[in-house]
Amino acid sequence: MHELDVKQVAALLKEQDRILILTHMSPDGDTLGSAFALHRALLQLGKQVKAVCGDTIPEKYAYMMRDLAVEDFEPQFVVAVDVADKKLLGDTYEAQYGDKVDLCIDHHRSNTGYAKNLCLEECAATCEIIFAVLEALNVKFDAAMADCLYTGLSTDTGCFRYANVTPRTHKIAAELLEYGAEAGEINRVMFETRTKEYIRLQVMALENIEMYAQDKCAFVLLSQAMFKESGCSEADCDGISSVPRKIEGVLAGVTVREKADGSYKVSLRTHAPVDASEICKKMGGGGHARAAGCTLDGAHYEAEKEKLIKLIEAEINAI
Amino acid sequence: MHELDVKQVAALLKEQDRILILTHMSPDGDTLGSAFALHRALLQLGKQVKAVCGDTIPEKYAYMMRDLAVEDFEPQFVVAVDVADKKLLGDTYEAQYGDKVDLCIDHHRSNTGYAKNLCLEECAATCEIIFAVLEALNVKFDAAMADCLYTGLSTDTGCFRYANVTPRTHKIAAELLEYGAEAGEINRVMFETRTKEYIRLQVMALENIEMYAQDKCAFVLLSQAMFKESGCSEADCDGISSVPRKIEGVLAGVTVREKADGSYKVSLRTHAPVDASEICKKMGGGGHARAAGCTLDGAHYEAEKEKLIKLIEAEINAI
Repeated sequence: MHELDVKQVAALLKEQDRILILTHMSPDGDTLGSAFALHRALLQLGKQVKAVCGDTIPEKYAYMMRDLAVEDFEPQFVVAVDVADKKLLGDTYEAQYGDKVDLCIDHHRSNTGYAKNLCLEECAATCEIIFAVLEALNVKFDAAMADCLYTGLSTDTGCFRYANVTPRTHKIAAELLEYGAEAGEINRVMFETRTKEYIRLQVMALENIEMYAQDKCAFVLLSQAMFKESGCSEADCDGISSVPRKIEGVLAGVTVREKADGSYKVSLRTHAPVDASEICKKMGGGGHARAAGCTLDGAHYEAEKEKLIKLIEAEINAI
Repeated sequence: MHELDVKQVAALLKEQDRILILTHMSPDGDTLGSAFALHRALLQLGKQVKAVCGDTIPEKYAYMMRDLAVEDFEPQFVVAVDVADKKLLGDTYEAQYGDKVDLCIDHHRSNTGYAKNLCLEECAATCEIIFAVLEALNVKFDAAMADCLYTGLSTDTGCFRYANVTPRTHKIAAELLEYGAEAGEINRVMFETRTKEYIRLQVMALENIEMYAQDKCAFVLLSQAMFKESGCSEADCDGISSVPRKIEGVLAGVTVREKADGSYKVSLRTHAPVDASEICKKMGGGGHARAAGCTLDGAHYEAEKEKLIKLIEAEINAI
């Protein structure tokens, strides 16, 4: 066990300088919100700091880093935020820093313990933990930090919809609004803005839903052909992952994206008691109890898909 | 002016017995959550109380009234909750009580002042006001009340998405979770459960969107034929109202439902600075700045639709 508590993490960060913050591939609001809130806090404490991602950061998150200068320095201390497994750093950063992460702050049950960590599963978002760390660091919260942290809270909870939300999640949200988080505008961008291309892709997805496990599993494939025909980019299709689970009676919603490299990225969303994390773990992936992911080998797609569906059917039949 | 404050409302309710609570037609989570939370609180204070609605209450809200006995008595005191205009009580209750409402608790800017009222526009939901009233009544909150109040908060804010959410909204939500509100389950039913019939209707709606005002207004008609073909009931199609406004660049999203009686019910959702309430007021309706409604005369549908679109275009062109 390498577990640290919030105070120890704050004390550790205070001692450091030239800090590099790492985020996960396919970056979401929580990894980026955690990274840039921490970045801003450490800047306030007079540290040299930079935050990076192995993937392109979608334009909709640009407000989090808008006014931040990109510093160039050799890191002395490496922090990974919301990164459950060093593989999720992406090839470049895994090769460079995979075995040199000094601190991991995360909330994934599937965290592999690849570094000294503060991993709190009971938190709906890593941003909840970062909020506590920033309090322990005696940081003066500003509106930009509040925007970052609110983004993580909101995006990792389906905007406070999911069962992972606790009273503390709402209390932090209240404080972040008081610090000036532009919640309405952030949620408009994250949840209430769909391109025409996205809507075209969504219609195609809805027209092609496959049902398994006595209609308790809904399966959607977003193929390269569908991306091409709709004009929707892969980075812009995240919202569709929440669609199959919404169908009445469905306990497991699967969304599979065909990637340009021929592999298939699975997003599995479940309702209790179906454990998404357990299913994805058996496919070499991981995540949370209600939202997890894994990758299918493109060379054996049909067999891999069948294996996944069989695992889901077994979980559902065991209820 | 007939405005009362929270303390005065609590004092007034304490004095009364045989209390009738009225809700609005096309009942939503806020009017029902307000009514049944207040119902439960007044029961706890030993009052005779009943809550009614002029419309059928959709099955998904049944949990709010599950264990409540329906009492039969001649009301001595009539309270309307979340009802902006006595017309919204529906014909029967308007005829019977329209001029006899003793107290109105509401949050609509368009409230017509038809009764002595506590109308707080700054509250995201009438349930926020009911929460304060219950506190002033020194009620002991239980899980059933918390479920009712949480439902109002959540449904009137798009589950904490919209710009009407304040720090207080989140603080109340935190308290309600502590009192035992089953937030995850409530949100699953309200937002995360779609029938196959609903999804068919949504696909039809998305395939038939009309754009106006240089693509800044999106218009969707849900016709009786579409309800029939999809199998989706009118009561089940609420979620579609939020769809047109989501399209990138759209400032005004219009969803029009053709009713069985030949009239057309308009739901208008806008982004700032377009004022939905002002537009709908000019069409004889009302509501909030970002969500309002009105009715179109079925005998002159095309002309009425044109009038509505012209009003929206004028608002958008004036920005």
